[in-house]
Amino acid sequence: MTAYENLCTLVGEIALIQSTASVLDWDQETHMPSKSLEHRAQQLSYLSAKAHDLATSDPFRSLLAQAETAPANQSPSEAANLREWRYELDRAVRIPTTLVAEESAVTSRAKHAWVEARKRSEFALFAPHLKHVLDIARKKAALWGFEEEPYDALLMGYERGARTRDVATLFANLKPTLRAIAKAAVERSQAIPKDLLRGDYPIAKQQQLNREIATSLGFDFDAGRIDTTAHPFCTTLGPNDIRLTTRYDATDFTSSLFGVLHEAGHGLYEQGLPAADFGRPSGTAVSLGIHESQSRLWENHVGRSEAFWKKWLPRATELFPSLGAISLSDFLATIHRAEFSCIRVEADEATYDLHILLRFDLERRLLNGTLEVEGVPAAWNAQFEESFGMTPPDDAHGCLQDIHWSMGGLGYFATYTLGNLNSAQLFQQAVRTPAIAEATGEANYAPLLAWLRTHVHALGSTLRPSDLMRAATGRPTEPAPYLEHLRSRFGVR
Amino acid sequence: MTAYENLCTLVGEIALIQSTASVLDWDQETHMPSKSLEHRAQQLSYLSAKAHDLATSDPFRSLLAQAETAPANQSPSEAANLREWRYELDRAVRIPTTLVAEESAVTSRAKHAWVEARKRSEFALFAPHLKHVLDIARKKAALWGFEEEPYDALLMGYERGARTRDVATLFANLKPTLRAIAKAAVERSQAIPKDLLRGDYPIAKQQQLNREIATSLGFDFDAGRIDTTAHPFCTTLGPNDIRLTTRYDATDFTSSLFGVLHEAGHGLYEQGLPAADFGRPSGTAVSLGIHESQSRLWENHVGRSEAFWKKWLPRATELFPSLGAISLSDFLATIHRAEFSCIRVEADEATYDLHILLRFDLERRLLNGTLEVEGVPAAWNAQFEESFGMTPPDDAHGCLQDIHWSMGGLGYFATYTLGNLNSAQLFQQAVRTPAIAEATGEANYAPLLAWLRTHVHALGSTLRPSDLMRAATGRPTEPAPYLEHLRSRFGVR
Repeated sequence: MTAYENLCTLVGEIALIQSTASVLDWDQETHMPSKSLEHRAQQLSYLSAKAHDLATSDPFRSLLAQAETAPANQSPSEAANLREWRYELDRAVRIPTTLVAEESAVTSRAKHAWVEARKRSEFALFAPHLKHVLDIARKKAALWGFEEEPYDALLMGYERGARTRDVATLFANLKPTLRAIAKAAVERSQAIPKDLLRGDYPIAKQQQLNREIATSLGFDFDAGRIDTTAHPFCTTLGPNDIRLTTRYDATDFTSSLFGVLHEAGHGLYEQGLPAADFGRPSGTAVSLGIHESQSRLWENHVGRSEAFWKKWLPRATELFPSLGAISLSDFLATIHRAEFSCIRVEADEATYDLHILLRFDLERRLLNGTLEVEGVPAAWNAQFEESFGMTPPDDAHGCLQDIHWSMGGLGYFATYTLGNLNSAQLFQQAVRTPAIAEATGEANYAPLLAWLRTHVHALGSTLRPSDLMRAATGRPTEPAPYLEHLRSRFGVR
Repeated sequence: MTAYENLCTLVGEIALIQSTASVLDWDQETHMPSKSLEHRAQQLSYLSAKAHDLATSDPFRSLLAQAETAPANQSPSEAANLREWRYELDRAVRIPTTLVAEESAVTSRAKHAWVEARKRSEFALFAPHLKHVLDIARKKAALWGFEEEPYDALLMGYERGARTRDVATLFANLKPTLRAIAKAAVERSQAIPKDLLRGDYPIAKQQQLNREIATSLGFDFDAGRIDTTAHPFCTTLGPNDIRLTTRYDATDFTSSLFGVLHEAGHGLYEQGLPAADFGRPSGTAVSLGIHESQSRLWENHVGRSEAFWKKWLPRATELFPSLGAISLSDFLATIHRAEFSCIRVEADEATYDLHILLRFDLERRLLNGTLEVEGVPAAWNAQFEESFGMTPPDDAHGCLQDIHWSMGGLGYFATYTLGNLNSAQLFQQAVRTPAIAEATGEANYAPLLAWLRTHVHALGSTLRPSDLMRAATGRPTEPAPYLEHLRSRFGVR
């Protein structure tokens, strides 16, 4: 066996442990009885320590060093795996175990404090914890090292090869146009009644429709499933075990459905990764910005399109008498309705990215030290006023609404908008092929999925995100396709 | 830290791994998508190898040896834990890894062959696999060692301290009386219509009733749950995570309910074990024969009693219009109906043990070499004719019906009847306390559960099964209470 093959065996062991932890995580979110929280935490912390020990062990290091110096007839996936393992190892060994333990303790307390602070809408309860989280993030950034600013080191953990400065420039250019589109879309939407769809939608029938639709996109239910949680997510328990969740509103079937479309987009990516490479970079999704492109592509470019509902509205009407004889155009108008609102996770396509730009700016300044934690509520509200023309009624609907910072997830938000940009760019590229455009126009998604399989899914992490975008579309991530999509969706010129 | 404390830490690690494997097992039975079977098998085999390595590791051995020679001021649970760890270690190290691997391969093939053989009702397809399984069981028995016969060594794995000869004597004495009771019960039952309860029982309402009833027994749903599987079971995923399953028949609500009562009996035992001792013998159920006593106690002594249905029949009638205005006595007659039938898992109280006695006798002879594998169908049918007055129509309804042998589970069946005997003996002892009898007569089960908590659950494995029975009831396991129960239930004198 070569050093590379031995390394793959060791990585396979780590993948068994990590995918086992994913089963435990999934179970915790979906089924675990409440009193088992403490024991489950012990199980998970045991598994994560074991995986970390193996991934930084002497055998791993020496095998990696040997494999790197082996004769250079590496396949693209072998080269990518060695590159990524080196990168991950170098990052992992720079963070001392004491800091890992400190972070775990700090974020555990911060999460509890955040829940309470949001409930009472009292930022002061969360502020000291956010300071600790920020302190640890800065320490980690310093240990990892960065070229220009600490945010770089964090962003790299989610989006390999991305630079904060580039993202900031991209977002700064986007902002005025996004605001203009959002404003026009919101104005146009005032004529659309808000509660047109409200009615009685039995959950069992929603589940049936969701399943039919996910199947029609190509989601394989012999290698996945859909369950119910308070917050929708997608998780991978093994190469053939991809689980989505959604939540149900018995008065509006579109809530669970768009959740499923979004998570099924993530799930199709995971189901399309090379199963034989499970647990290796070549069998792993490349970045959050590419992952989000898949969820947003199926949710928005497919799931909010006229062609999609031309096919599925009749079926929905069959299942839900509540829909009455709603016309396709009224239905589309309703699901394209835009409004300025405070909560990101409830935002529509027209206003969503303004939420992201605000968060990116604030957390970048927090890390650079140009914004103090105490100044967050005021800075949030000022920017919110500027972008949305309104001020949140309280911090619970403002700077306390998201869980990310309490979990130490700084540098994460930017990938949501990168995902939106990528989704439009990939979709527009795919439908340049007439056969894909035609099939997609008839709500037959096999050709579109096949294109994504080839140009995105099958690649795993062999190409970095920007190289993947270039290979798939001929261009790095850029705003034009997305802005074109928004303009067309909201009839804005 | 003392050697004993260090040992507890190491055992805690093993318990984390094993309870993690239980989560994976449970998920596989309840939710896992079919294509994930191979990956799940890899995860489980990895975890079981890790647990086995730790449980037979040099640190474990040397800590155990140190703890055993430490000054003898041990608590009862410490003494029991040292005794059981020594016993388990000695058994574990006698079986070479090659035999473990061979057994796993043989039983995996045997299980597949059994499924096919049962489907086609062709014993010849299963016979060569049963020979392999038997061969391995004999090898293991020889390596473990036994006083009188190989069956002893296997039985000890399920029922510490039990001797085959004693069980055989007990069963031989039981048999004529059981046959007489069964015969009388079946004759008496012919006047009772078979399909009196058949109707329309929506599964959601069955689930509601099952949950209300399990709660009323004392099952804690914050530390457990009920799911749906083809074969009901109870499994422990952590000290506060006990999961039951049942199956639903939409035309008869008693099918899922008695499944829940049985499994909740197992679950109450598990919920009553000392949580702080999780994973140690002192926090682990003592034997299958005691475990089964708990399931049968709640299923039959409580769940088929008049007092129970006096309370719950009105509620069931409220939920299920199908029940109409059935009287309590008609209902009880129906759920006490006895008949001779071929399938053990569908057998009633009056005939169940005859199924067990037959299996015990055959597998004992197989192990002693006085019955050849080829002779199993004929021996089965002859004994069946003798006990039930009928011959199975084919081997699928005869010697191929149970999964146990294909999994290497020889020596297991006896514990079902031991459990029945123990259930009657424990129940009768408990209701000797007037307050318990009175509450139980009003379907208030808190006092009964409290008695079981004290005399059975809280003890874990600190007492051996026979000592537990003696401590709880003043007598070792004996047939009189059970026979008295059956006679009274079926009105046989």
